[in-house]
Amino acid sequence: MRFATVEAGGERHYGGVTGAGFAAVDDLFPDWRTLRDVVEAGGFERLAEEAEARGETHALSEVTFLPPVPDPEKIICVGVNFPDRNAEYKDGQEAPPNMSLFPRFPRSFTGHGQPLIRPPESEMLDYEGEIAIVIGRGGRRIPEAEAWDRIGAVTLCNEGTIRDWVRHAKFNVTQGKNWDRSGAMGPWLVPFTGRGMLDDVEITTKVNGELRQQDRTSRMLFPIPRQIAYISTFTTLVPGDIIVTGTPTGAGARFDPPKFLKPGDEIEVSVDGIGALVNGVADE
Amino acid sequence: MRFATVEAGGERHYGGVTGAGFAAVDDLFPDWRTLRDVVEAGGFERLAEEAEARGETHALSEVTFLPPVPDPEKIICVGVNFPDRNAEYKDGQEAPPNMSLFPRFPRSFTGHGQPLIRPPESEMLDYEGEIAIVIGRGGRRIPEAEAWDRIGAVTLCNEGTIRDWVRHAKFNVTQGKNWDRSGAMGPWLVPFTGRGMLDDVEITTKVNGELRQQDRTSRMLFPIPRQIAYISTFTTLVPGDIIVTGTPTGAGARFDPPKFLKPGDEIEVSVDGIGALVNGVADE
Repeated sequence: MRFATVEAGGERHYGGVTGAGFAAVDDLFPDWRTLRDVVEAGGFERLAEEAEARGETHALSEVTFLPPVPDPEKIICVGVNFPDRNAEYKDGQEAPPNMSLFPRFPRSFTGHGQPLIRPPESEMLDYEGEIAIVIGRGGRRIPEAEAWDRIGAVTLCNEGTIRDWVRHAKFNVTQGKNWDRSGAMGPWLVPFTGRGMLDDVEITTKVNGELRQQDRTSRMLFPIPRQIAYISTFTTLVPGDIIVTGTPTGAGARFDPPKFLKPGDEIEVSVDGIGALVNGVADE
Repeated sequence: MRFATVEAGGERHYGGVTGAGFAAVDDLFPDWRTLRDVVEAGGFERLAEEAEARGETHALSEVTFLPPVPDPEKIICVGVNFPDRNAEYKDGQEAPPNMSLFPRFPRSFTGHGQPLIRPPESEMLDYEGEIAIVIGRGGRRIPEAEAWDRIGAVTLCNEGTIRDWVRHAKFNVTQGKNWDRSGAMGPWLVPFTGRGMLDDVEITTKVNGELRQQDRTSRMLFPIPRQIAYISTFTTLVPGDIIVTGTPTGAGARFDPPKFLKPGDEIEVSVDGIGALVNGVADE
């Protein structure tokens, strides 16, 4: 079963997704305010049982998907993590020995089915399809050999970027990566069942049905266990923390002329076994 | 009156600081969980009245200072914001047209009087003295002319940095700026009373009594109102958000040979009208 956070009837709920329906069960777990607490408690099985027993409370057409973990302590994104991505920067620099990292604030993401917001300040809204992992059991200096065991769930991310604002300043991509609702996370959490879910799966991004990004996680320059080990060297990872694991080559900025997103476009980020995150685009 | 968040007797409290004492008053305001809520509600006057009426509940020697806002939605730091700071990077690049920005996670800060933590991975722990502003009234695309009015309180920051990890990757200083308890914030919040508090004040940093950084806020390349306007262009600022406004030249990395921090050092960041943030250094 998949687990989503939605808005329905003006209220936020979490619960299970089954076929065309959503079974809200958050009222049964008052101690678990959000799916962050569920991930921390390892509560997916109990949620699934209750969702199954209760059955559909809302048709999917009645709910608005929100980012599945609405309140992570931190979201850390890995940059330049697939072959040829370094070359895309055209800055003459060698690929770096360590991964690039940048935080995004939760408010820079919207949910599945909602439009990415293109602000009036830029026409360079770009897509980046990625897998996002949610930490289930935290820690500091987690060895790579233990890293898979620390993942609680998996979801998808469209790490939407305002491309010209990424280069605004001397270093740091902060401002190009943190426009309100410029990216998306979802549709849901899939409980993590083992490395086979992630270590060699295909990730694709399509825009209006046209394939733009396609690669396999086995080709990551910094594989997921390395990410968990490296990040937890300097900061304590806690349950609900999200690592956005890197995007394949093929973002819109790569094309000549560039293919930036515009209102009416539909972007689909897909990974077998996780699902498809679909978003439109709207001008603010 | 100044307002602090402390730990005493195993519990977290907020309240007023008067001379050598602390007056905990958080039990009187159950709706305000932390000073973030107090800033949002504009509640400093009520806090001051209650703290005065109650009088000292703890000697300062009995409390452990915590970062005054323990739960900000976001902390955004401004890089390279004083004259000569750009030259310190020795990368041959011109000063950028916009400010560099990078987020820090709350757990990268400790409170006044606590040691900055030097991890076993690096001997390059460095200081950066700065003024931090706390947003009182949030918003998006705040005009510079209205920016001063959005500040709720002011505090100090030692934006401690693991210098070699700042350069680990292609861009972004994330990993050098986010080591657990590598920086400090405090000692307290001073309610913001007007631009005269901030627009031309001296900031100094001393290490073991030796003056290392000294400059005036009037020389910022990107003044505080510009920071608020620029940051709120892309992200909605909310009450309790913290902007760390930039450090003068003179961090330890500037010296030849560099003067990095080591256990036993004492660092004091001072600004007239705000106070002095003092921290030692300890190996993890």
